[in-house]
Amino acid sequence: MKRCCVMGVTGSIGVQTVDVCTAHPEAFQITSISAGRNLAQLRKLIVQLPHLKAVCVQEEADCLTLTREFPNLEWVWGEAGLLRLSEREDYDVLVNALVGFVGLKPTLKAIEAGHDIALANKETLVVAGAFVNAACRQHQVALLPIDSEHSAIFQCLQGNRRDQLQRLIITASGGSFRDLTREQLKGVTVKQALAHPNWSMGAKITIDSATMMNKGFEVIEAHWLFDVDFDHIDVLIHKESVIHSLVEYQDHAVIAQLGTADMRLPIQYALSYPDRLPLINSQPLDLAAIGTLHFAPADFTRYSLLGLAYEAGRKQGTMPAVMNAANEEANAAFREGKISFLDIEELVIDACRTLAFTDSPSLDAIFEADHQAREFVKSHLKGA
Amino acid sequence: MKRCCVMGVTGSIGVQTVDVCTAHPEAFQITSISAGRNLAQLRKLIVQLPHLKAVCVQEEADCLTLTREFPNLEWVWGEAGLLRLSEREDYDVLVNALVGFVGLKPTLKAIEAGHDIALANKETLVVAGAFVNAACRQHQVALLPIDSEHSAIFQCLQGNRRDQLQRLIITASGGSFRDLTREQLKGVTVKQALAHPNWSMGAKITIDSATMMNKGFEVIEAHWLFDVDFDHIDVLIHKESVIHSLVEYQDHAVIAQLGTADMRLPIQYALSYPDRLPLINSQPLDLAAIGTLHFAPADFTRYSLLGLAYEAGRKQGTMPAVMNAANEEANAAFREGKISFLDIEELVIDACRTLAFTDSPSLDAIFEADHQAREFVKSHLKGA
Repeated sequence: MKRCCVMGVTGSIGVQTVDVCTAHPEAFQITSISAGRNLAQLRKLIVQLPHLKAVCVQEEADCLTLTREFPNLEWVWGEAGLLRLSEREDYDVLVNALVGFVGLKPTLKAIEAGHDIALANKETLVVAGAFVNAACRQHQVALLPIDSEHSAIFQCLQGNRRDQLQRLIITASGGSFRDLTREQLKGVTVKQALAHPNWSMGAKITIDSATMMNKGFEVIEAHWLFDVDFDHIDVLIHKESVIHSLVEYQDHAVIAQLGTADMRLPIQYALSYPDRLPLINSQPLDLAAIGTLHFAPADFTRYSLLGLAYEAGRKQGTMPAVMNAANEEANAAFREGKISFLDIEELVIDACRTLAFTDSPSLDAIFEADHQAREFVKSHLKGA
Repeated sequence: MKRCCVMGVTGSIGVQTVDVCTAHPEAFQITSISAGRNLAQLRKLIVQLPHLKAVCVQEEADCLTLTREFPNLEWVWGEAGLLRLSEREDYDVLVNALVGFVGLKPTLKAIEAGHDIALANKETLVVAGAFVNAACRQHQVALLPIDSEHSAIFQCLQGNRRDQLQRLIITASGGSFRDLTREQLKGVTVKQALAHPNWSMGAKITIDSATMMNKGFEVIEAHWLFDVDFDHIDVLIHKESVIHSLVEYQDHAVIAQLGTADMRLPIQYALSYPDRLPLINSQPLDLAAIGTLHFAPADFTRYSLLGLAYEAGRKQGTMPAVMNAANEEANAAFREGKISFLDIEELVIDACRTLAFTDSPSLDAIFEADHQAREFVKSHLKGA
């Protein structure tokens, strides 16, 4: 029996984690969860979870309301509440499905408390991969990927020796605007950007897919998860998203994981690993019906944030934190209609080029770099 | 250090096995070999093999000639010679790259002598899979596939539990005539049939690819190698032969092995397993350059021998032996210009429908069924 704490439970990954866990009550129990402000969704989920002990919400007022509504549960709120959940002893694995930098502290706290991490919150590794990895080694906990690409790579590594691995090949759909030129990108709307061709995901990551910032994050995430240098991590455009990623070995054998666009598979594999359980209410992949798969090289001119991410990954220091924070702010500003789509790139690159760089930062310096990058973007928004 | 006996050393797989072994002298030694009548090729290979102790050739006269030429080697000939090689104690693994039913006895003898088997000779498993598997269990030897499809499946099984496997998906290029209708097949020549679009292979298997008898054999081979019933082995037309085969698990994850059309990879993996060694003089797969992969369902009307193989695999008894023997004779007769391409199918199906069926045959009964099927085809050739 694996007991789970699910952070970000009302989001896309969170809800699917509940689906996976409730489908296998013999294997999984959810004992604590966190949500933001979507109380309607939260109430629906609570009644599906018979083993739930503790819940964190974002706002104090919501916490008070829900404490009266569900007096048998322990209620906490805000960042301090997330850390309280992290350090609880009544669970085995933290499913971190928070969005953005906010996911970092709860991850580190859970690792310190000796809990395994099933990670959907890629920003955690992008900004502080070295700290997370060091903490995992120190406390001997496992870090299991939930991102479909990283889960694919993780699956393709099984039964093989890491020192015989030659290259990771991360596939990229190209996002909502993959068929548009940079010229055509000038007029695109938020609604268009949110229409991802293959995957149904949260708003922030869907915009990150359209800019390919997401794929850049995944390259950095792969570096930290699998200890592969950036010269041996490739991005391959594959618009059908059927091959979720590939691993090339030194004998030039390539192992790939394929599947339908169902995030419950990587979620479940992270929880059931090394076993595989039946995935309920799912259809097998039908390649004959799909008929054709396409592949193309990644275009670093068309997708400048992808190139920036390689640069940040190689340079390390505070650069990934600055890039991530600027992107979180610019992504939000675009969704709020404050800037155009191409302004996202411009602001992120500007922040990376302008802000001071620290080579071997402390964790505090990373938090400071995050703060400065957010202020940088906000000040530019006011000026716009 | 793994010491190898390579049977069929002058054939396509044999020569590539020598290439793999001589590229890794720290890992592999070839201590004995067998060849047919290609003495020029045999002489070339002998001087490349510093650890060679014994050689088998097909004809007694050649054996006498070569004994004088290479007096430091032990020379044997014919079927008895193959069995003498099999039972030698100075090797670890038999690379069986013989063509056809003739490969069965040496395989069984090698297993009885406690040697692992790296198998390119699929007919061995097609006609007597139950006997080969029982012998492997009894003598605790490993049976490692060299066929590219089965090596792919074997690679995709690593790190996973067999009881969580759901389906094997064997890819098929469709062979030399994949774009022709049955009507167009009427006039095809031997030369056209030997021009395989993707793989450079021996003549017999290239014709078997064109009729899809080869793919049918591979389905039966997969059944015996991986203990999967015929309802859970699919054939998928994939004309590029880039995905060598796939395994679907119960969570609907599909693991695939991809690569260039280089048989040295599966040969080397069978010998280096579970490790992977660098494959010298080979290029990595470049999916971006390939651009597009195609998939289509297998057509059992267009390829009637594929359907027959499923029937033979399910029915077992003497039927696979009859099918295989009739095919060996008809395939040879086509290559000798005695019958047309579509006659191959007709003769194989006729033999299976006409000859007596035995449900649980002894090994002797399988040899008898093989003999009868050959006589059946030969008598029809005389009548033609």
